[in-house]
Amino acid sequence: METIRIGDKKVAFLDQRKLPEETIYLECGSWQEVAAAIKQMVVRGAPAIGAAAAFGMALAAFQYNWQEEKEFRANLERAAKSLLAARPTAVNLAWAVEKMADSAQKAAGKEPAAVAELLWQEAVQIADRDVAINKSLGDVGAELIPGEADILTHCNAGALATVGYGTALGVVRSAAAQGKKVSVYAGETRPYLQGARLTAWELQQDNIPVTLIADNMAGYLMQQNKIDLVLVGADRIAANGDTANKIGTYSLAVLAKAHGIPFYVAAPLSTFDLSIKSGSQIIIEERPAEELTQLAGKAIAPEGIKCYNPSFDVTPAHLITAIITEKGIIKKPSEESIGRFFKEKGI
Amino acid sequence: METIRIGDKKVAFLDQRKLPEETIYLECGSWQEVAAAIKQMVVRGAPAIGAAAAFGMALAAFQYNWQEEKEFRANLERAAKSLLAARPTAVNLAWAVEKMADSAQKAAGKEPAAVAELLWQEAVQIADRDVAINKSLGDVGAELIPGEADILTHCNAGALATVGYGTALGVVRSAAAQGKKVSVYAGETRPYLQGARLTAWELQQDNIPVTLIADNMAGYLMQQNKIDLVLVGADRIAANGDTANKIGTYSLAVLAKAHGIPFYVAAPLSTFDLSIKSGSQIIIEERPAEELTQLAGKAIAPEGIKCYNPSFDVTPAHLITAIITEKGIIKKPSEESIGRFFKEKGI
Repeated sequence: METIRIGDKKVAFLDQRKLPEETIYLECGSWQEVAAAIKQMVVRGAPAIGAAAAFGMALAAFQYNWQEEKEFRANLERAAKSLLAARPTAVNLAWAVEKMADSAQKAAGKEPAAVAELLWQEAVQIADRDVAINKSLGDVGAELIPGEADILTHCNAGALATVGYGTALGVVRSAAAQGKKVSVYAGETRPYLQGARLTAWELQQDNIPVTLIADNMAGYLMQQNKIDLVLVGADRIAANGDTANKIGTYSLAVLAKAHGIPFYVAAPLSTFDLSIKSGSQIIIEERPAEELTQLAGKAIAPEGIKCYNPSFDVTPAHLITAIITEKGIIKKPSEESIGRFFKEKGI
Repeated sequence: METIRIGDKKVAFLDQRKLPEETIYLECGSWQEVAAAIKQMVVRGAPAIGAAAAFGMALAAFQYNWQEEKEFRANLERAAKSLLAARPTAVNLAWAVEKMADSAQKAAGKEPAAVAELLWQEAVQIADRDVAINKSLGDVGAELIPGEADILTHCNAGALATVGYGTALGVVRSAAAQGKKVSVYAGETRPYLQGARLTAWELQQDNIPVTLIADNMAGYLMQQNKIDLVLVGADRIAANGDTANKIGTYSLAVLAKAHGIPFYVAAPLSTFDLSIKSGSQIIIEERPAEELTQLAGKAIAPEGIKCYNPSFDVTPAHLITAIITEKGIIKKPSEESIGRFFKEKGI
């Protein structure tokens, strides 16, 4: 099952709002459609929305390639701004849009039509590279997984959150491929149910043992010694290692610490935002109350009830045992250890 | 809105499976119907199912009051066993059934018809007393609430969980009545959504400010200093203070401790089970997978997915700042402090 299908000057996203009941692809032939798909969570997951936005930029270039260069570039910039604003927390979106804008910049003087072709190739490359990166990350992270392990994960940091293979679930896949006996507890991840609808489904498809739980059961499972490690993805990692991820991740990190259970974050290097010192600078997206009050079109809370629906939280670095990247593992993440890692790897 | 309506040799329960969309009463004229209503969670909440079971016993006495005394008593015992087995975790159920069985025992020699009348009066008294107890408990607990407080609660320990007024929400009601500026964050309480469907609705009806959140947001709220205290009910409290309550309570207690936030349990004395030394002896009910995989008749998880659905967890006493009862507050609950409290109060 592909998260993003690449067509001829168009892309199609597996509509994740409809999973697991229906597997429908939503086709986008314009950057506006891509921005709407990101905003409405047709496509979600930090690496996936990065790749999606790259295609959004390439589509914008095709949409305006008949224009004079100045106008063309102004429109590209407008598309970039809108794509960037589609969702605020995941840095991969900004990373991809800026990478595309840079490439357009570097092609200054070229015909808009040629720039469009170039941007399309770049978007395809970002998508292809995402899968390769996740496979490396998975293999790197599998080292940390014992021969037998019950792993708690949250949200969906799987193939569906990326172009393929997944980050946290990529580590699970690599460990399983190495013959390790892994089983996963998937927190359902209210309110959007990415755990129930996406992670459970994705692992079921791959025949990796998975048990669905409500998010509030995590502490009880840890108390009962049923969890060997917690493994999640990330939407943005600050220079000091503070990590934004799906709401509820912070609670799991506190619980893991209290129970002496390792807490791992799996994320590609594109998730690091070294421009911010700490997690307090990360913008936390708030989403509509309806995500909490409605389900499948039915009210599950009284009409007019006030809701608070932050979509992410920030886990401070001191609660993170290690961050797994495609280039290696950063143990005890901190400004110092992350700085050293980036230097050593020549990033 | 009454949780239990007392009729003429029948009771009706506000069907809590249907709230807040519909307010429908389910009438029960037999102990079998009462047992089914408890099992199916038409009526839920530790004190409420205690009172419900008391009426179940009284109805059994009416059902069999035409029989010979021996047969009558055997049938009463059968009813008691079934009512006791309807749900295993809340001790109030056992407390009420045993209280009723005791009364029947003490009336040995009386005509079954007279015993039935006597048991009915006793059930009415248990119900009336529950409201009075909760009001006392609420007034006692209100002492612990600051003049302005944002209170996090879980599940529904309100009027709907009792015959009236509520335990944890009784404390909120008393504090509000005293003019304190209280506002409540209600965790939605997956999978059964007692927080979203019942607590949010109940407080909305009473014009007490309430904000609905997903359970996994609690840690983030505490991190943001948005919670002044946590206040929950209880289903069974062991002699050492370990407390069984709705699944997710333990996670909240760990989070509260990590953030230095007081964690209060509000429960009538009938919730104490001094026959067990610690929480490890409390049976944790597991409920059907469908509670997690279906909502409003719609699948929200892939077909055939394995689920784990424990309905309660146990919070160790050392995480509980105080237990609020109708006779006073037990600070730093432990075998010693609880023993002393019961002795001092002559219970």
